[in-house]
Amino acid sequence: MLLCDIGNTSYHFYDGVHEKKEDAATFDPRTLKEKVYYICVNPAVLQKLSPLANWVNLERHVDRSRYYETMGIDRIMACEAIKSGIIIDAGSAITVDKVQDGRFMGGFIYPGVRAMEQTYKNISSALDYSFNYKVDLDKMPKNSQDAISYGYLKPLQAEVLSHNTELILTGGDASKLACVFPRATIDELLLFGGMQKIIQRAKLC
Amino acid sequence: MLLCDIGNTSYHFYDGVHEKKEDAATFDPRTLKEKVYYICVNPAVLQKLSPLANWVNLERHVDRSRYYETMGIDRIMACEAIKSGIIIDAGSAITVDKVQDGRFMGGFIYPGVRAMEQTYKNISSALDYSFNYKVDLDKMPKNSQDAISYGYLKPLQAEVLSHNTELILTGGDASKLACVFPRATIDELLLFGGMQKIIQRAKLC
Repeated sequence: MLLCDIGNTSYHFYDGVHEKKEDAATFDPRTLKEKVYYICVNPAVLQKLSPLANWVNLERHVDRSRYYETMGIDRIMACEAIKSGIIIDAGSAITVDKVQDGRFMGGFIYPGVRAMEQTYKNISSALDYSFNYKVDLDKMPKNSQDAISYGYLKPLQAEVLSHNTELILTGGDASKLACVFPRATIDELLLFGGMQKIIQRAKLC
Repeated sequence: MLLCDIGNTSYHFYDGVHEKKEDAATFDPRTLKEKVYYICVNPAVLQKLSPLANWVNLERHVDRSRYYETMGIDRIMACEAIKSGIIIDAGSAITVDKVQDGRFMGGFIYPGVRAMEQTYKNISSALDYSFNYKVDLDKMPKNSQDAISYGYLKPLQAEVLSHNTELILTGGDASKLACVFPRATIDELLLFGGMQKIIQRAKLC
């Protein structure tokens, strides 16, 4: 069974054993003849896939009424994957979603690493630094690089830890945030777990 | 006694009773003949002021060793103004600085309102909203506008409140953040208080 999570920049495939990525702009989905179960937040790719009979959009099999209208299908699929906890999906945005006993409790959106570094740089050239992930988050900083690193990481940590629940880190920047959430489980295949549950529940195969 | 706090966009004057602002790009400081005590984070204006004998740069009278090397003089002056507490100075960046018994304990930098709205918009057109300052920060949100409003405001609130100390709000966007920190004192003239202390201590008048 081939699964595919399609974002703004790439197709992320997983067959239960191996994963691979293809560029969203250049990959031709017609080259695949087997059945592919997918989710997609990329409108241009969605249009390409809709006439292809072997590409099955799992979004149609999700009970969207349990979430909110404009919530991305990738966030929904991550929520479907767990029973209780907070999912921190670190990509171009960091989405933080809470699930309790299988129920979506709400979520928020924080800027991703690259977006936030750019933000500080745009405010002032004096703030043009990469983040220091080793900054001591237990002590207010006394230099510019740490002042923005702490400013980005500590508020997120303080809010997330206040919920006092299990944490799951996923997304391309999950490993960068691992030192901010040392007790979190890193699961880069989390969304695929949600997709597999949907397939089973809808008896698609 | 005329005081002036010069930022990237304006001269902010205060004579002990009235305040007024002048555009940093167009105001000609030579038009003022009286003595002006100032601080300035704007390099172009600093160059214009340095040959003018009646403009006194208070930065020379500050003990910088109590702070860190690249810390802006505006942040330092705000710290000089208080004995203990956290200063939240909400401008193009939000600087958060902690002072305890007159000692600077460190500080961090969070993006300002306009910078952060732009960041979300740049990540995705689906996140192009103004912040909702009335968002309920006690409940994870279930719509896109609140998901970014909470994502911007709640982490900052969680981190700042964790220090459990007195809060002083200042800067152009202080009133916007008042609902996030309802127990904070708003003091838009805070920096001038710091400047007055420096003038007294250095016996400048």
